Amino acid sequence: MPFWLATFAVRVPSPTASAAQSDLVAAFRRRIAEVNDLSALGGEALVPLVVDGARVGELRASLASELGERWPDLFRRDPDRDVLALAPSLSDADARTAAVAGVTAALRDDGTFSKGWRDELCAVGAAFYAPPAFSIERACYPAFGVKGYGIHVNAFCVDPSTGERQLWVATRSRQKSTWPGMLDNLVAGQQPAELSLYQNVVKEAGEEAGIPEEIARRAKSVGVCSYRGVDEWGQLKNDVLFCYDLELPWDFEPVAVDGEVEGFERWDLDRVAAAVATGANNAIGEFTSYKPNCNLVVIDFLVRIGWLSADAPGYLQLVDELRQGDCR
Amino acid sequence: MPFWLATFAVRVPSPTASAAQSDLVAAFRRRIAEVNDLSALGGEALVPLVVDGARVGELRASLASELGERWPDLFRRDPDRDVLALAPSLSDADARTAAVAGVTAALRDDGTFSKGWRDELCAVGAAFYAPPAFSIERACYPAFGVKGYGIHVNAFCVDPSTGERQLWVATRSRQKSTWPGMLDNLVAGQQPAELSLYQNVVKEAGEEAGIPEEIARRAKSVGVCSYRGVDEWGQLKNDVLFCYDLELPWDFEPVAVDGEVEGFERWDLDRVAAAVATGANNAIGEFTSYKPNCNLVVIDFLVRIGWLSADAPGYLQLVDELRQGDCR
Repeated sequence: MPFWLATFAVRVPSPTASAAQSDLVAAFRRRIAEVNDLSALGGEALVPLVVDGARVGELRASLASELGERWPDLFRRDPDRDVLALAPSLSDADARTAAVAGVTAALRDDGTFSKGWRDELCAVGAAFYAPPAFSIERACYPAFGVKGYGIHVNAFCVDPSTGERQLWVATRSRQKSTWPGMLDNLVAGQQPAELSLYQNVVKEAGEEAGIPEEIARRAKSVGVCSYRGVDEWGQLKNDVLFCYDLELPWDFEPVAVDGEVEGFERWDLDRVAAAVATGANNAIGEFTSYKPNCNLVVIDFLVRIGWLSADAPGYLQLVDELRQGDCR
Repeated sequence: MPFWLATFAVRVPSPTASAAQSDLVAAFRRRIAEVNDLSALGGEALVPLVVDGARVGELRASLASELGERWPDLFRRDPDRDVLALAPSLSDADARTAAVAGVTAALRDDGTFSKGWRDELCAVGAAFYAPPAFSIERACYPAFGVKGYGIHVNAFCVDPSTGERQLWVATRSRQKSTWPGMLDNLVAGQQPAELSLYQNVVKEAGEEAGIPEEIARRAKSVGVCSYRGVDEWGQLKNDVLFCYDLELPWDFEPVAVDGEVEGFERWDLDRVAAAVATGANNAIGEFTSYKPNCNLVVIDFLVRIGWLSADAPGYLQLVDELRQGDCR
């Protein structure tokens, strides 16, 4: 046998890279793929929306064409690069916001944006820490492919008798219009411009789970997940989730303050992992899954605490796929 | 004031996003940029090396041209895509390894690969968990832009009196040819094909720090860092670092078994963060920095345990930049 053949040896499976671990990794990667699925576009291209040379969103090619044709003074399809640029004459955020508001109102009246109009403006910018380029009605956010930012909190506690971590799992209200009855992180919310991330975590922890401020302030930022896909309502999601860990006292019980949950339960991590992989019974005994983007936050938690073996085939890709969206 | 102006409010700095945190994030990003620096190429393109349609490495355009011209039966510059393909007639790993060995020996005799010849073959493949496409002399690894894989362990302990984590820091031997006297992770090593990652962690923990197997087996895989850059010796590094955390007992003292370190010290995380950002005195009192790629592993540790505030400008980019290389 040539001396170099040793390098071809098959990697010896690690004691912790069992078949079960390999199955988990494969199932987790399928969950990540669900929120990164662009197949609902049917092959239609996405055209970047550019302000002052910086990309602030993206639109289906058909909508980009429509905007360029109906409002040629406001939107310009760049002949060289396939981008839609907001007219440079709109030189500040106020001017852009007013101009875009006229466009979105016309599209609403046409029926293009028929659902979920809220008269609530959201900031649109080139990057999270940069000043917004303009603001746009929240209902139009996905159609303009604007990056969305949210905070998601893994609230866990440590069983004092075993030292094992358990994760709090919320069951979403069956009355919610989106993902009713599905599993959720204990605390999660969209990021408004007027709060810091940390302030938003503390606020949402109080509103969604009755967590007192002095406990919520123990939350720690532990990383980021991102994804880009079209959801089941055809909306383009281009989101960044800021992940927080919050250790709750063993005797603390979350309270559903705002009526958006059916109940809270504390699960061991085997059950959590199985819920991500294949589903589990929620707090009212229905078999369900996590709300799709929450899977990423839970998987990230399981990766960070060492729940998965790097020797399980696909682990490297799994970790990488947790941040498939732009982190801007 | 128009109703929508509220969305333009400047984000309120979080209590934990101090100026010091912002400075840390900026300094950490500079460290990450150091190992992702391709400027030493002087603008020369990198040409993918392809086997059976899969990319297994990349070469400077000048070397790719030389290989295609001198060994046209073995290497083919694809006329349509700018890639260098190994001839399909080399249909298995043995044949490719033998053919490439002839090429690298000729380049060694020419002086192209004059340094560090080891008569040691390393596997070259399209992905970590895939069988290797062929093997190549280790000294030629960087010139062929082959992905390198390593394990890096954050060995820490928890101060029983305060509950605070401290990180073990190694000072590299001053006799080492690479990065003498610089700071290092307690345990780190290249990944050989014949071991699992976990087995390699346990083996290196014993060899590099005298950690008994029963303790080393507590190591947990907690994520991945990656980078792609040209190092100070002009070598292209295209590496994936598998990160492990290992909590050591408070009374455990590492032992320099293989003579590759000057000493070990246990540092509080303020000192560790400062060492990454600006440098620190090593175990023999010299002011130095971490070995460049170790910075990523320590930064990833600090992110995961919540040492940094997501509100610090650049945090989102920092987290993303920890995996700038391909994770294949």
